[in-house]
Amino acid sequence: MRLSQFHLATVKEVPADAEIASHKLMLRAGMIRKLAAGLYTWSPLGLRVLRKVEAVVREEMDRAGAVELLMPTIQPRELWEESGRWAKFGPQLLKIRDRKEQEFCYAPTAEEVITDYARNELKSYKQLPVNFYQIQTKFRDEIRPRFGVMRAREFLMKDAYSFHLTQESLAETYQAMYDAYARIFARLGLEFRAVQADTGAIGGNASHEFQVLADSGEDALVFSDGSDYAANIEKAEALAPAAARPAPAQELKRVDTPRVRTVEDVAAHFGVPASAVLKTLLVQGKDGLVALCLRGDHEINEVKVGKLPEVGGEPVLATEEQILAVTGTRPGFIGPVGLPAEVPVIVDRSAAVLADFVCGGNADDTHYTGANWERDGRVTRVEDIRNVVEGDPSPDGKGTLRMARGIEVGHVFQLGAKYAEALGATVQDEAGKQRVMLMGCYGVGISRIVAAAIEQRHDEAGIVWPEPMAPWRVAVCVINPKGDAAVAAAAESLYAELSARGVETVLDDRGLRPGAMFADIELIGIPHRVVVSERGLAAGTLEYRKRDEAEARAITRDELFALLD
Amino acid sequence: MRLSQFHLATVKEVPADAEIASHKLMLRAGMIRKLAAGLYTWSPLGLRVLRKVEAVVREEMDRAGAVELLMPTIQPRELWEESGRWAKFGPQLLKIRDRKEQEFCYAPTAEEVITDYARNELKSYKQLPVNFYQIQTKFRDEIRPRFGVMRAREFLMKDAYSFHLTQESLAETYQAMYDAYARIFARLGLEFRAVQADTGAIGGNASHEFQVLADSGEDALVFSDGSDYAANIEKAEALAPAAARPAPAQELKRVDTPRVRTVEDVAAHFGVPASAVLKTLLVQGKDGLVALCLRGDHEINEVKVGKLPEVGGEPVLATEEQILAVTGTRPGFIGPVGLPAEVPVIVDRSAAVLADFVCGGNADDTHYTGANWERDGRVTRVEDIRNVVEGDPSPDGKGTLRMARGIEVGHVFQLGAKYAEALGATVQDEAGKQRVMLMGCYGVGISRIVAAAIEQRHDEAGIVWPEPMAPWRVAVCVINPKGDAAVAAAAESLYAELSARGVETVLDDRGLRPGAMFADIELIGIPHRVVVSERGLAAGTLEYRKRDEAEARAITRDELFALLD
Repeated sequence: MRLSQFHLATVKEVPADAEIASHKLMLRAGMIRKLAAGLYTWSPLGLRVLRKVEAVVREEMDRAGAVELLMPTIQPRELWEESGRWAKFGPQLLKIRDRKEQEFCYAPTAEEVITDYARNELKSYKQLPVNFYQIQTKFRDEIRPRFGVMRAREFLMKDAYSFHLTQESLAETYQAMYDAYARIFARLGLEFRAVQADTGAIGGNASHEFQVLADSGEDALVFSDGSDYAANIEKAEALAPAAARPAPAQELKRVDTPRVRTVEDVAAHFGVPASAVLKTLLVQGKDGLVALCLRGDHEINEVKVGKLPEVGGEPVLATEEQILAVTGTRPGFIGPVGLPAEVPVIVDRSAAVLADFVCGGNADDTHYTGANWERDGRVTRVEDIRNVVEGDPSPDGKGTLRMARGIEVGHVFQLGAKYAEALGATVQDEAGKQRVMLMGCYGVGISRIVAAAIEQRHDEAGIVWPEPMAPWRVAVCVINPKGDAAVAAAAESLYAELSARGVETVLDDRGLRPGAMFADIELIGIPHRVVVSERGLAAGTLEYRKRDEAEARAITRDELFALLD
Repeated sequence: MRLSQFHLATVKEVPADAEIASHKLMLRAGMIRKLAAGLYTWSPLGLRVLRKVEAVVREEMDRAGAVELLMPTIQPRELWEESGRWAKFGPQLLKIRDRKEQEFCYAPTAEEVITDYARNELKSYKQLPVNFYQIQTKFRDEIRPRFGVMRAREFLMKDAYSFHLTQESLAETYQAMYDAYARIFARLGLEFRAVQADTGAIGGNASHEFQVLADSGEDALVFSDGSDYAANIEKAEALAPAAARPAPAQELKRVDTPRVRTVEDVAAHFGVPASAVLKTLLVQGKDGLVALCLRGDHEINEVKVGKLPEVGGEPVLATEEQILAVTGTRPGFIGPVGLPAEVPVIVDRSAAVLADFVCGGNADDTHYTGANWERDGRVTRVEDIRNVVEGDPSPDGKGTLRMARGIEVGHVFQLGAKYAEALGATVQDEAGKQRVMLMGCYGVGISRIVAAAIEQRHDEAGIVWPEPMAPWRVAVCVINPKGDAAVAAAAESLYAELSARGVETVLDDRGLRPGAMFADIELIGIPHRVVVSERGLAAGTLEYRKRDEAEARAITRDELFALLD
């Protein structure tokens, strides 16, 4: 490709709403242009990268035996009613009425349609297992679309759905997809981890997320330094401390603590570490408020709390009015000592081994010191309700947990019978009986991968593409192409030779000044830059610079070819 | 590909609403499955064909210098208001409200978004010309979706938009697109014609449709047998007859004609040919009714009538009440003689040379004979308002018109300044002045091409794909693969060798009986069928049949390779 013929449009200034590196760089490089909130046009440059990711995903899906098809983006309400998701999906589901007042949605995923397809097409266990996939535009009406294509409303996704007679068969395809995903992200040249994930509202047996590692990632991940264990923090179990609870050594004492409210305030006030302070949160449970007690230095894990039978769903903090009504005090002074009997007290495993702790006094501006479980504070149940922290023991018993941040780019999921049961998708088994199929589902966020790669790989000057994602592998930059015929000819010859060797090359024949030209080529992240200039021509060399190396160096044509082979 | 691993799902019965061959065959071959009215899932088999068409279109667009990008399917109302199409597009535009009550549409085409992109990205004449294209899902909310993917609501389309400073530049890119389209349809192996088309409501200077020829086509096309002239019947000019109007020879005579209403009735009643009967239609004009007079054997051309200044838009027939109010009679008895003076009388060129004709009496159950223009009937203006018919002279003066039917699969269009002006898309010209850009637009209906090819190429047994569109070029059919190891091994070896030679091959290893297997392979239209059997193995030959040949014949492996090279 000659850059003079390609519509490259780098820009200097980006809007203030571009907060993260990938969003800024995609705008600066001219890869995307915003059309409306969460809606982006992919420019010629951006689309080249998107298509490369798409091609790798397709190849690996095909290699893993998945079969590609294509479902409509617009799907009828009736099917979504059958699964119950028409109502459950919430306002992220973009609902549409057609000219005949029939209702449809723009698919955010396609479980309903594929299950409908399967119940019509699959009749016998002999047709199983089968794994259908598509690469198709999706829509989620995010309340706050942000970060460019990282959390856009319209996006490109690969979604696959497998159908099985047995759990063993499902587990086998699940593993094949897991392996395919690992190959995809390895081939794309990204640092990634597969982590155990919560199966969430969908239920099911097993689930892994594929996370591209990046400091700016929205997801917190934990790894063991002594084993393969890796999980999303939502999922990671915090083991019970090995040591038993010490016996009480102090008397319970009520202390006036005006204006001492936060854990930090309390720890400072009493001169104790935050880990010796008990934090008590009240959330709205199924039958009134529920108290959650944990160490002052720990954080609630909302997924774990949501699974408590007393809570049963995404936890919502009690309002100030609710707290006042039940405890007679304001938030900041709640504690387990003397809480009304109707409030269940769920104590985190780490908090359950505290003795002589400080906690709220259940009266405005008071705290207790020397508090102890059983003797002073009621324990309904001990549970794991907190996020693990760096240094916690690994849940598999091997090593210590380390933390990292990641961007979720893939998710594999054993769905089980959920959709097939709701839609009555059965096949005849060997004995001639109708049996509900089991399903797996497997998603890759194709457009999101592009942004995630940039989050992981960029520097001051711009994007640093891994070679398999780069719009071109090599840029041949020509100094003064119009003024120097010999230079222009040498550049053309090099461009032709590289192209003939199958090296994807762009010729920067725009005639820009070297500084502006190099800045563009660095910004758009081309892995290899070669400069053809009068001086180099005289010396019989090319100036070569690898994108992730600091210095350029002089090399011969043959050295360049060897380097790119 | 091994067919045992591929989800092939041919069916015997198709729903009664499948009216045309391509719809029936796509359902029977299992290429598509209906999700809802006008919404289809493309099965693995169907998608293979769709992707082949897509690939050829992309290659030829790239070769012609167009640059690919990707626009969102969901587009904001504001832009569609700027062009005026939010209101004008009518109910085919699928309108959507998001969770914040903002309005959007699902794009049926993307003139607004690309013009917005261009006004932001293009600043200087130096960036012109540029031709952007995308291959993206589109939606048109058809009132009566039918014929499968031929007139679906959601469909796959390639749309390109070029930007220019001058008309010369636009004409040049228009020609390049015309040539690219010709290459696309030639490469796909389809019989097609490029025909002049009406520029319709969009205006603009030039427009050609690319039509796949098929008897079932919705469009009527005309060709000259003496030149290159080809046009959609909507566009084809009916020349004025060479001979002048004869002088009146008969007296005007009023005749009672109870129950004689249609042209056929009138011609039979008076014993004259339909061409001697004058047919008068009343349509709703801008300022009251307008009379259209043409020969009884001719048909109104609605596009031509819509362009009459008295009509100004798609013509609508007058209602019985309107006709009664203005003429005092019922439809069927209208004629130019004695029509109220406020009704303009537009006479077709062919009707204008009639003399002594029969026409309605403007009173119930009466007609005139011996009617003549000027003497008896008022002529406001003579115009071309009819469809040409077979045998008419070609409008270019060379040869005679012949008719054919076609399916529109491509359309190239010189838009001119319409959108760029509405959206204020300007660039700086060489003199430093801002100038509104000129635009061309170029569409290919990718999913429709699949159906059109089947309309053109099918027989009793099924689809007859041209090789470039076939899901596979060759099918290797194995007789009794499980019962005969030597046959299975020979088939595997042949399959491997063909694949190694780059011949796209499917191995039918499903173990079906020969009849069922051959029926499937014919139905899905594979161009070359090779049968590996015990008998052939003994004779050292393969049974070969070309899809469009009647008989199979025995050939050797080497003959097969030579034939496919």
